[in-house]
Amino acid sequence: MKITLKDGSVKEYSEAKSIYDIALDISEGLARMACAGEVDGQVMDLRTVIDKDCGLNLLTQKDPEGIRTVRHTCSHVLAEAVKRLFPNAKLAIGPSIDEGFYYDFEAEPFSREDLDKLEKEMKKIIKEGNRLERFTLPRAEAIQLMKDREEPYKVELIEDLPEDAEISFYKQGEGFTDLCAGPHLMSTKPVKAFKLISSSMAYWRGDSNKAQLQRIYGTAFAAKDELNAYLEHLEDIKKRDHNKLGREMKLFTTVDVIGQGLPLLMPRGAKIIQTMQRWIEDLEDNEWGYIRTKTPLMAKSDLYKISGHWDHYIDGMFVLGDEEKDKEVLALRPMTCPFQYYVYKAEQHSYRDLPLRYGETSTLFRNEDSGEMHGLTRVRQFTISEGHLIVRPDQMVEEFKKCIALAKYCLSTLGVEEDVTYHLSKWDPENREKYIGEPEVWEETQQHMREIMDELEINYTEDVGEAAFYGPKIDINAKNVYGKEDTMITIQWDALLAEQFDMYYIDQNGDKVRPYIIHRTSMGCYERTLAWLIEKYAGKFPTWLCPEQVRVLPISDKYEAYAAEVEKELKANGILCTTDNRSEKIGYKIRESRLEKVPYMLVVGQQEEAEQTVSVRSRFAGDEGVKPLSDFISQICKEICTKEIRKEEMTEESKK
Amino acid sequence: MKITLKDGSVKEYSEAKSIYDIALDISEGLARMACAGEVDGQVMDLRTVIDKDCGLNLLTQKDPEGIRTVRHTCSHVLAEAVKRLFPNAKLAIGPSIDEGFYYDFEAEPFSREDLDKLEKEMKKIIKEGNRLERFTLPRAEAIQLMKDREEPYKVELIEDLPEDAEISFYKQGEGFTDLCAGPHLMSTKPVKAFKLISSSMAYWRGDSNKAQLQRIYGTAFAAKDELNAYLEHLEDIKKRDHNKLGREMKLFTTVDVIGQGLPLLMPRGAKIIQTMQRWIEDLEDNEWGYIRTKTPLMAKSDLYKISGHWDHYIDGMFVLGDEEKDKEVLALRPMTCPFQYYVYKAEQHSYRDLPLRYGETSTLFRNEDSGEMHGLTRVRQFTISEGHLIVRPDQMVEEFKKCIALAKYCLSTLGVEEDVTYHLSKWDPENREKYIGEPEVWEETQQHMREIMDELEINYTEDVGEAAFYGPKIDINAKNVYGKEDTMITIQWDALLAEQFDMYYIDQNGDKVRPYIIHRTSMGCYERTLAWLIEKYAGKFPTWLCPEQVRVLPISDKYEAYAAEVEKELKANGILCTTDNRSEKIGYKIRESRLEKVPYMLVVGQQEEAEQTVSVRSRFAGDEGVKPLSDFISQICKEICTKEIRKEEMTEESKK
Repeated sequence: MKITLKDGSVKEYSEAKSIYDIALDISEGLARMACAGEVDGQVMDLRTVIDKDCGLNLLTQKDPEGIRTVRHTCSHVLAEAVKRLFPNAKLAIGPSIDEGFYYDFEAEPFSREDLDKLEKEMKKIIKEGNRLERFTLPRAEAIQLMKDREEPYKVELIEDLPEDAEISFYKQGEGFTDLCAGPHLMSTKPVKAFKLISSSMAYWRGDSNKAQLQRIYGTAFAAKDELNAYLEHLEDIKKRDHNKLGREMKLFTTVDVIGQGLPLLMPRGAKIIQTMQRWIEDLEDNEWGYIRTKTPLMAKSDLYKISGHWDHYIDGMFVLGDEEKDKEVLALRPMTCPFQYYVYKAEQHSYRDLPLRYGETSTLFRNEDSGEMHGLTRVRQFTISEGHLIVRPDQMVEEFKKCIALAKYCLSTLGVEEDVTYHLSKWDPENREKYIGEPEVWEETQQHMREIMDELEINYTEDVGEAAFYGPKIDINAKNVYGKEDTMITIQWDALLAEQFDMYYIDQNGDKVRPYIIHRTSMGCYERTLAWLIEKYAGKFPTWLCPEQVRVLPISDKYEAYAAEVEKELKANGILCTTDNRSEKIGYKIRESRLEKVPYMLVVGQQEEAEQTVSVRSRFAGDEGVKPLSDFISQICKEICTKEIRKEEMTEESKK
Repeated sequence: MKITLKDGSVKEYSEAKSIYDIALDISEGLARMACAGEVDGQVMDLRTVIDKDCGLNLLTQKDPEGIRTVRHTCSHVLAEAVKRLFPNAKLAIGPSIDEGFYYDFEAEPFSREDLDKLEKEMKKIIKEGNRLERFTLPRAEAIQLMKDREEPYKVELIEDLPEDAEISFYKQGEGFTDLCAGPHLMSTKPVKAFKLISSSMAYWRGDSNKAQLQRIYGTAFAAKDELNAYLEHLEDIKKRDHNKLGREMKLFTTVDVIGQGLPLLMPRGAKIIQTMQRWIEDLEDNEWGYIRTKTPLMAKSDLYKISGHWDHYIDGMFVLGDEEKDKEVLALRPMTCPFQYYVYKAEQHSYRDLPLRYGETSTLFRNEDSGEMHGLTRVRQFTISEGHLIVRPDQMVEEFKKCIALAKYCLSTLGVEEDVTYHLSKWDPENREKYIGEPEVWEETQQHMREIMDELEINYTEDVGEAAFYGPKIDINAKNVYGKEDTMITIQWDALLAEQFDMYYIDQNGDKVRPYIIHRTSMGCYERTLAWLIEKYAGKFPTWLCPEQVRVLPISDKYEAYAAEVEKELKANGILCTTDNRSEKIGYKIRESRLEKVPYMLVVGQQEEAEQTVSVRSRFAGDEGVKPLSDFISQICKEICTKEIRKEEMTEESKK
């Protein structure tokens, strides 16, 4: 057989050979470095025997798939260490994942000290350098082996494998054998730079009705410096994590007796959301032609039966009452659509009245499991800049374009536009039963949407099968600090649902005609946007969004009166400010202000009072010098009014 | 016996005599006019026999208690008419009430045509002029009489009377006898000017689990002109009724499939509420030192168990889930208190941080029967300008005073301050078990509140037994257009509940101390306030509150471009405006604007375009002449900014 290597050279062998042996044949060094082999594009265990012509790429720790193998082996090393130190622990699963690996155990929760001890034990195991040996067993024997070792989760896993599946195990030394599909390193020795990162509870098979396990996360890299760089990056991420930083900055809190997924916005967080909310409401109403509604947060089941939510979405809804016992059953709303439709239906409309753009700062509810809740992003109640446009078919393209332009404008004002990706979520022509409407109409609509995106010069990807059942949509996605992607904004094309609610307008001929609907948001959920901004700016929000834009710092209590005068003048100009009158040293007050990420500090003392000036220090440029108060007010008012995102230009000197 | 009449003269009789006979003895004319007698201050039937010395005032239709008797007799005339025209109808109850009377029947719903027919029949009965005869029966016979006549509601009423009660009947002619305590006229004849006003469903004994009856409302007056004046007043009231006018003006609507008590605010209503909400939020935060929270609309049952709502208020709450089935039970909040307490508790506070004034635009829920719902005032979901002040005991009086001053300021800004009454709601020392805390503390606190009210120069009444269980409060009440009184604003003194939630601050000595709490609102519920303003202003809101402050009216389509320019300039100045570009006559457009109660109309044509002016017509003064656009903008901006309530000074001439 002929083996074509990555560099184009060809090796010929007369008999079948394992990938490892081929590597060894090329050079002993390469064999030592190899983690896995890519055979005709498919990643395989080094032990895999090649018996026919193929292309072969030997993967080392420098290759993404190579390091994955190291991490996978490292998870087995972890499991062996756990079994040594905690012999009663039961093994569940331990895969490699992006940037690392984890292993789930049935065990008592692991403390950081436990993890440290485990790391020590793992180093010992790696030093022992046992070979990993792969073997397979027939189903019954495999089950028996795991029963003998009292590993019930493994037994369950094997029982769930298809009848014809090959059941493979990896054995490292005498002490440890694990059910595993591989691939793995030849021995534990090449695991050089690893770290156990954290431990948390995880459900067996991700099912909250099943057993609670303990998951240990870890990672491994080719070298110490790579690992350290990654750990530093993790530290930075952790500092930005909105669920940590948002609490530290007193933007929000959660309370056990109130419940998970129900964050309380504290005064600073509530002020930011108020600022965003008013900005969006005014932008929509005064510049984009929206009219506002305020509709109830609940409705009778009757409404949801018309909308279809009762039949298709009831598990996600909070229901009040019981259809069998109560004469009236209500449910909290998971969407605003039909409420705004009924505002439309409360009047008769002529073709001249359209488009009607209804906007609402709308609170919605999702009945999700409390275990799934997280900070401000996975919540059971949230508030969205919601809207539905009721338009004539001939207005649809133009209005849809404006919706995207508005969302883009909002994103760029918040300074996050470069962080998003745009997606045209299309239907799946291979899966027609999931959608209503004619194929030609789907294709035509999607073509309209492509043209709109091109006109707006927006790059986008096309995602098949991501459309709503009634029409395609544009999704705008962003990643959180951990790299998890979420849809922040969605704008949906709906030419079909007006029928369901019997909505119409009267056309030129006096006939009733069905309008088209655009379901859209300009800025998404305020809670989620706040989370995003916390992580984007590491809490250092643009001045216009800050809950405290200026802090006045009198040098001593002699200048409290002047400080009060300054504060009054700032407030009269709509600037959010406070005064720190505590009898602390000025240096201490400045440091605290900076830690609390206040954009401007105005230090006032004798000279400032005499000259009606303020000594300005900012988060952006440090010491900005002494200015007349009126000049500072003009400057910051302009910054707020234009929603400027001022860059930090601080020197080490000015940070002092 | 000696009877002292109202004019001081004395009549002496040797034997007992009925009031009617005494009237007859004085003059036949007086006997004809008499409706009832007031004996030593107590109103009695004319048939009552007097047998000892007393003061007697003979009441005629001119006296409030006299006309009540006429109305009561009129209700019997109505009942007789119903039995004549609808022989299957069953009698329930038929009292006189303020301004009229009603009678409840078990019957099919009555149409206006039915009421007209009944009025005709009543006139016939009055013309027949039968005497009303009063008789009493022993209990068993009384029940038998009503059973014979197949009047089950009357049977139930008699059965519920105390054993020793006198059971009296009034019989008018041969056809009609009714269980009744009186008093009544001597005959149906003096009923001169009456009217049946409306009919609606009412539950037997006001209990929604009992039978549905049909209630007919009517009234009677001493003379035709008085009746007509009253009916005109009723028409005016009906026009102002927020539940009618608010719908006509497209401020709100309700939808069957969404549910009763869940109004949808349409764009105009939503805009008014947005304006009020932002005004209150900014007023509180920028001028009265409040900090804003935004807390969740639901919580686990755990929270309500701590607050006591779970045990004492659960029937009024919307509960999500079932304690027996679900691992977590949530409920929608009926109040904001504990949510803001937990915001307080999320940080440690020193005595220097207090007072902390938490404000929230808070949505609350009340699970009330859908039959009780009404417009914007009896609703199941509402939004309130909520707030809790956490203060040191030494700050309590000052802060409580500021809360009342703020409420007073809000009321006067809305122009409704003269329409409210202030009440000091006190504990009831005769009913101590209803309250917690020491009697001396109650008395002392109430004395503080009196002093606060005196300092603020506010007139108030003192209402015994109206306090909350934990402290006294100030209630500010207003009447709706029908005279029904409701509490709009309440400010509560609470020195006791911080304990329940373990709230404290650290005092000068480093000790933990319980703060005092003020529960308060500045402007009450926004929905209810909107209803109040609709009725107060008959929809003609002050300009600053109007959802459409200006309408631009081009004389013809030639001036559309200039109209658009004017609209743009107005909007740039934050003025809410629209343009009526329809090809209708200018007179028609003006009339429609006026009907829709738009404060300002700007007519623009050739001259205005050439001179950059606008021809101003207002709701207040009619034609205000041609002005430079910039002058008009300055004028209206000042009016909006100062929240001026401009009076209407329209002449008949200018209304054209």
